[in-house]
Amino acid sequence: MSQPSFRPEARAPRGFSDKRAAELRAERRILDAVSKVYERYGFEALDTGAFEYADALGKFLPDSDRPNEGVFALQDDDEQWMALRYDLTAPLARFCAENWETLAKPFRRFAFGPVWRNEKPGPGRYRQFIQCDADTVGSARPEADAEMIAMGAEGLEAAGLRRGDYLLKINNRKLLNGLLTTAGVADPGQKLGVLRAVDKLDRLGVDGVRLLLGEGRKDESGAFTKGAGLKGQAIEAVLAFVQVGAGRAQTLDRLSNVIGGSEEGARGVEELALIDAALKGMGVGEDQALFDPAVVRGLEYYTGPVFEAELQLPMTDEKGEAVRFGSVGGGGRYDDLVARFTGQPTPATGFSFGVSRLAAALRAAGQAPGDQARGPVVVIVFDQDQVTDYFAAAAELRAAGIPSEVYLGSSGMRPQMKYADRRMAPAAVIMGGDEIARGEVTIKDLDLGRALSSQVADNEAWRAERPGQMTVPRDQMVAAIRQIITASAREPNP
Amino acid sequence: MSQPSFRPEARAPRGFSDKRAAELRAERRILDAVSKVYERYGFEALDTGAFEYADALGKFLPDSDRPNEGVFALQDDDEQWMALRYDLTAPLARFCAENWETLAKPFRRFAFGPVWRNEKPGPGRYRQFIQCDADTVGSARPEADAEMIAMGAEGLEAAGLRRGDYLLKINNRKLLNGLLTTAGVADPGQKLGVLRAVDKLDRLGVDGVRLLLGEGRKDESGAFTKGAGLKGQAIEAVLAFVQVGAGRAQTLDRLSNVIGGSEEGARGVEELALIDAALKGMGVGEDQALFDPAVVRGLEYYTGPVFEAELQLPMTDEKGEAVRFGSVGGGGRYDDLVARFTGQPTPATGFSFGVSRLAAALRAAGQAPGDQARGPVVVIVFDQDQVTDYFAAAAELRAAGIPSEVYLGSSGMRPQMKYADRRMAPAAVIMGGDEIARGEVTIKDLDLGRALSSQVADNEAWRAERPGQMTVPRDQMVAAIRQIITASAREPNP
Repeated sequence: MSQPSFRPEARAPRGFSDKRAAELRAERRILDAVSKVYERYGFEALDTGAFEYADALGKFLPDSDRPNEGVFALQDDDEQWMALRYDLTAPLARFCAENWETLAKPFRRFAFGPVWRNEKPGPGRYRQFIQCDADTVGSARPEADAEMIAMGAEGLEAAGLRRGDYLLKINNRKLLNGLLTTAGVADPGQKLGVLRAVDKLDRLGVDGVRLLLGEGRKDESGAFTKGAGLKGQAIEAVLAFVQVGAGRAQTLDRLSNVIGGSEEGARGVEELALIDAALKGMGVGEDQALFDPAVVRGLEYYTGPVFEAELQLPMTDEKGEAVRFGSVGGGGRYDDLVARFTGQPTPATGFSFGVSRLAAALRAAGQAPGDQARGPVVVIVFDQDQVTDYFAAAAELRAAGIPSEVYLGSSGMRPQMKYADRRMAPAAVIMGGDEIARGEVTIKDLDLGRALSSQVADNEAWRAERPGQMTVPRDQMVAAIRQIITASAREPNP
Repeated sequence: MSQPSFRPEARAPRGFSDKRAAELRAERRILDAVSKVYERYGFEALDTGAFEYADALGKFLPDSDRPNEGVFALQDDDEQWMALRYDLTAPLARFCAENWETLAKPFRRFAFGPVWRNEKPGPGRYRQFIQCDADTVGSARPEADAEMIAMGAEGLEAAGLRRGDYLLKINNRKLLNGLLTTAGVADPGQKLGVLRAVDKLDRLGVDGVRLLLGEGRKDESGAFTKGAGLKGQAIEAVLAFVQVGAGRAQTLDRLSNVIGGSEEGARGVEELALIDAALKGMGVGEDQALFDPAVVRGLEYYTGPVFEAELQLPMTDEKGEAVRFGSVGGGGRYDDLVARFTGQPTPATGFSFGVSRLAAALRAAGQAPGDQARGPVVVIVFDQDQVTDYFAAAAELRAAGIPSEVYLGSSGMRPQMKYADRRMAPAAVIMGGDEIARGEVTIKDLDLGRALSSQVADNEAWRAERPGQMTVPRDQMVAAIRQIITASAREPNP
């Protein structure tokens, strides 16, 4: 079994990362807050296993030459191909199809957990990340979409985004689709080209999009992008549509005028009106969610209302130039969820976000409190014969809710103090035999030491208030340490 | 892309299960409670990715004929073999070896998450399950083991086990090992045979173990199990040792007498004495943890103290016969954690439990509260034109902390009431146009209906107290529903 001659290199596989306490705390805080909101909306938690059969994953059927296209796949003992889930929607589809008869319908569930993508990793691009999804399956009502939007907004706020930090932009695929049909554009490829062009409105402006809707566009480098091939009138109709502007009641009025009398477009406007009414009922304001015909939200897949939560904070990159953070979540309506299994089209709508990305948005918004590491109090092993007293002191601190540990290495006093400092301990507890005999304990204020050495604190003020080291009666140990922790919480972060 | 002619069967892969809300709530409750305890002990959370390189997993090196022996393995783009982690120790070893220079040492971490075993699934045997581990890496002190024991006990209690429901049994590999060395038994295979025999003490009794320590034992069916091949005196020494009895101070005294003057055995007793002193310091009583020389805890791997948490509840199987629930967690000292990578032996000790198993133990102990599903209040869609009012009512209930939803299907009144009942809704809210005009709302007490139909409740008492259906002013809706929920919480579960 053992191979003394072979020493593997210790490294995580490409695209997989180790997460330390601060990051895990931030993720946990988000998931706890959002779960509570989703449960209040009547959504139940569901967790499926990491694997699905490859044939159930939908977009993927393995071939033995290249079984790993996009997903991590392997062949089970019984020769069936399995793959790690690449999102939470495919497992939901399988679960719904498997249990449809026994579920109370519409079925509302939320889920969070890792998903895996077998893609080329890069900076900030991982092959495993945590998604959080909520979906309502079996309701065709636009109000189900409205609920997703309201719940998404409430979830983002519960996670820590302030109102105004984000905006949920709502669109409906039926609007542009109907407009194009009326304009004589029926080819799915051409429609896709239109969506791609519209998606670049933010970056290229109206003139750039006009070129991409028509013959195509040459960029600064001279590279040519072929356009969607629309003619003049259709181009102007699309541009009028996407520039209707963002809002709710006003936008609804104006939309009716620019969709070109299309029946599908009119249905899209009706759906948005029902969404607006339900949002009003739930008290969702225009500072939280509004209609924006320029929102595309992915190219295929969605069939009706789509929504995208965008961070609204002014942001700059390292060069000080303005950048958009972009989406922190989104979703929409899709209607072929379980049809692959059952042949029955089943209407569904959902909202999804990536937990790391929302954590990054919270940091950008200055709403990521407590991510600073805070270590335990360290009880120094000063005298081997007194170890029982050290464990009693640590247990007493823990019983008072103060994280604490006895130093368990084999080093002397100075390395122990250094260890306590690296652990970000607020204080060290020192008890020699004499002190124990006198019923005393010495407490070293390590927060103070860090603050003074990092020059963060006003030395004079801190020194006047905090003695650095003190000897107190043993029965005042907990109170004295609590005082250090409380004082540090008031001061700027040491 | 779409394959209208092919309909995959909707089923989860063999050995993988879907978890619904109640199970997830129970698991989350355990992990939250235990995490808080571990953090108070100064342990920091760590999460690694699902994959490790196969060479880093240790017990496994892939061969292309049979790459899946025990683990789920696949070959990455760059031809390197990766495997899903089968426990949380191998990733810890890799992480420690990779970051050893920058870690504050001893390094204390806890971790929880899924692990995967590519084994034959069966009833209750899954190929994915959640483990929760705590380990201290870089401390050879027996007090580090004591801390694991104290923390394990506190964690089990925080999860919901009462004192007395469980018992942590502690042993030390050095005792039996030293005893055997002194008795002239040096062959590792023979030592393993002794461990296997001792492990059967509970099941076979002293006489059965005596046979297995010697030539072997024939069971009732006539099948023969070869024994460890010890001679008479060595057999009696082992039996005297394992029967020393469980306790702490007393057992320590007696152990010194039965380990046969071995140096290694004496060191083992010393370590247990240090563990005892630290446990005393932390206030861990003999009703929580004691020494038991008959505890084996796995066969290889451990090098010093081992501990096993056993459920102590009297339990019976379906036939009413007494059964042991067995282990709910355990751990011990192992000293080759990072040596595979670095060549440097590094002392470590840990405590581990399976979350599903602990959840089952809590159910067995009657300590799994609130696992009963509790649905949201359902606002009935009585009149399409009033949907905005329905969403306002649901939002108001949610704002008051009461989970609520508007029915989002397309069915009429009766199916809606049936839906509310299947959702385990405490109440349904009904608002017709007339009621809305009068500023009223009708509330149906569904808990009452369920209680009456299930005959759980005393019909007379419930009926006297609870009207079943009532119409109240709209501004008293929240109060009226809260009253139903509170009353149900007092009554036996409907």
